[in-house]
Amino acid sequence: MVDGTPRVVPTLYARRDDHVLIHGSPAAASLRHLQGGTEVCIAVTLIDGLVLARSAFHHSANYRSVILYGVPRRIDDLAERREALDYLTDRLVPGRLPYLRPMTEREVRATTVLEVPIDEASAKVRTGPPGDDEEDYTFPVWAGVLPLRLEPGEPIPDPRNLDGLQPPDHVRGWKRK
Amino acid sequence: MVDGTPRVVPTLYARRDDHVLIHGSPAAASLRHLQGGTEVCIAVTLIDGLVLARSAFHHSANYRSVILYGVPRRIDDLAERREALDYLTDRLVPGRLPYLRPMTEREVRATTVLEVPIDEASAKVRTGPPGDDEEDYTFPVWAGVLPLRLEPGEPIPDPRNLDGLQPPDHVRGWKRK
Repeated sequence: MVDGTPRVVPTLYARRDDHVLIHGSPAAASLRHLQGGTEVCIAVTLIDGLVLARSAFHHSANYRSVILYGVPRRIDDLAERREALDYLTDRLVPGRLPYLRPMTEREVRATTVLEVPIDEASAKVRTGPPGDDEEDYTFPVWAGVLPLRLEPGEPIPDPRNLDGLQPPDHVRGWKRK
Repeated sequence: MVDGTPRVVPTLYARRDDHVLIHGSPAAASLRHLQGGTEVCIAVTLIDGLVLARSAFHHSANYRSVILYGVPRRIDDLAERREALDYLTDRLVPGRLPYLRPMTEREVRATTVLEVPIDEASAKVRTGPPGDDEEDYTFPVWAGVLPLRLEPGEPIPDPRNLDGLQPPDHVRGWKRK
């Protein structure tokens, strides 16, 4: 909330135990506003499929969504912050961390990390086939679910990669959790 | 905003010209709150890829996101509402509408449709390869982008489908716009 108006910021995140980690530049207005004891709302939605019914009215989506409210804690201790950032990287691309040039202290200092406790959350889920009106089940149209999934494509090498480098297994085998 | 707290609701939507259509049950608290001249914020984020740098610090995501604020107008005219609902269905699954049992007047009446003007919007986009620190380009790790895309899987037929129905082309050929 800034001046009474909600602000929405898309961001990467990681759940760790009973809290959610988010991070960003200390210069980002959105993160600065979250450090004064203000409650934040985190919303995550995954779409799992299109629900194709016999009537337009009963079309829907299969999805999983969660919304949580909490007051963020800024992680000030540098060792703890580094650990949280490593965790974020490892959740985003499992297995990549050991390949990377280690984070410098300057980089750790230049990153704000917030930990949002999962105190209160609500989840909504829809699964399964369409639920049509009973009299519509004789209507001759294919009905069902078209599953949707976030899938990785062919890795695109950085034009400045050193010669001969191939995408490692953690890139080739990446899957949405 | 309800009692000073932001509420977040995942929903299907469709852009039509210079506004966004959303719909739902008249019983949904979230929609009722939006009919009294309250400003709503609509946020859409599409993730296009994971940006894999040489340092954890420069890891990022390629994405397109847009956030808009507007005061919704409820579509009260039934013919206009039916047209808006047909548009929504056609955007969700292009080509499906002619196959469906037509909407009844009862169904049109039982659906709230809101039109949110795109008066003010902000977009954020990231594309392209990682941007590493100059001295890191000699670090011997594969860097680049792992593209991500919402892909349809094999259609799952409703167990109550009539015998012999096959998924039509609008299901087989569905693509995220």
